[in-house]
Amino acid sequence: MKPVALEHASRLVNHGPTVLVCTLHEGRRNVMAAAWSMPVEFTPPRIAVVIDKSTWTAELARASGMLAVCVPGAAIADLVTTVGQTSGAKLQGEGTDKFKRYRIAHATGPVLGLPLLAGCSAWMECRVIPEPHTQQAYDTWFVEVVSAQADERIFREGRWQVNGDNADLHTLHHLGAGTYAVAGQIRASRPLD
Amino acid sequence: MKPVALEHASRLVNHGPTVLVCTLHEGRRNVMAAAWSMPVEFTPPRIAVVIDKSTWTAELARASGMLAVCVPGAAIADLVTTVGQTSGAKLQGEGTDKFKRYRIAHATGPVLGLPLLAGCSAWMECRVIPEPHTQQAYDTWFVEVVSAQADERIFREGRWQVNGDNADLHTLHHLGAGTYAVAGQIRASRPLD
Repeated sequence: MKPVALEHASRLVNHGPTVLVCTLHEGRRNVMAAAWSMPVEFTPPRIAVVIDKSTWTAELARASGMLAVCVPGAAIADLVTTVGQTSGAKLQGEGTDKFKRYRIAHATGPVLGLPLLAGCSAWMECRVIPEPHTQQAYDTWFVEVVSAQADERIFREGRWQVNGDNADLHTLHHLGAGTYAVAGQIRASRPLD
Repeated sequence: MKPVALEHASRLVNHGPTVLVCTLHEGRRNVMAAAWSMPVEFTPPRIAVVIDKSTWTAELARASGMLAVCVPGAAIADLVTTVGQTSGAKLQGEGTDKFKRYRIAHATGPVLGLPLLAGCSAWMECRVIPEPHTQQAYDTWFVEVVSAQADERIFREGRWQVNGDNADLHTLHHLGAGTYAVAGQIRASRPLD
């Protein structure tokens, strides 16, 4: 993974991929899948992500004020579905967590120390912007990106470079029920006269 | 276009497509492209969409309290880029609008009477939920869907049905600079043991 300039960070989720949200607080950690996220600003790079207020992820993010947004590649679709369907709180009660249970390989974020999953095309560490009303009313969390990295096989010079050679890293877009559209075809366009 | 049950409406944008936002107020109308939107709730169906506060679209949506979210198909990618790059306010000043200027075919929404673009896989009429703080701070508008329709060639029984026969209706996911990933490949998944 190579650093991505912060002014390009919002492009990592510009096209609506399903993401993984990673959290860490006082040694407890979690990872969940989130189909619902979007950038809200390029500079400073800010993202909105929907996290159900009842989740373990919400509890850890609220307590720590931080979360990571990882963009998984198509090769780990089964893992994305798995962490989207299992409860971190339940595993915590059993004395384990999803990382151990599913033997999830991960790196450590350079700024906030958050877990970042292997098999991702990109990842971002983010600080939570306190917006209790939108968290309560819409489960919508606004966060600001403080570090961003991407796999240069698919994201270089601030741009996604999708082609047939990097299919394992093509992004996933959840259609429902564990089925994804894969962003593997490219369509250029030009303005009409 | 066939009606979509409101409890399935959020699925129309679950996978992060670029959308078109259509507005109408006292005979004035506009359409813009928005790469940044996401559902925030299934029931009631609610969506967040980023609309720059300085735009003609924001002015019309604020005045009317409504907007439509259309999901364009790949065949109209050039039109999507065009309405994303041109200013509705400028055309208004010239006594015209994007619909006339680009001869955009459209239907009329069944509940709110909003313009809905031909060539779309799906569309939704929405009422704006008043949230001035998030509009001001994050250009983020929360809306509630009041009518939804989809082309049954690609969305049936509450599900996207993407295949090789409906390529013109595959959704677009903006990577930047008028280039889109097209959601034309499907990846099923299964939870890990």
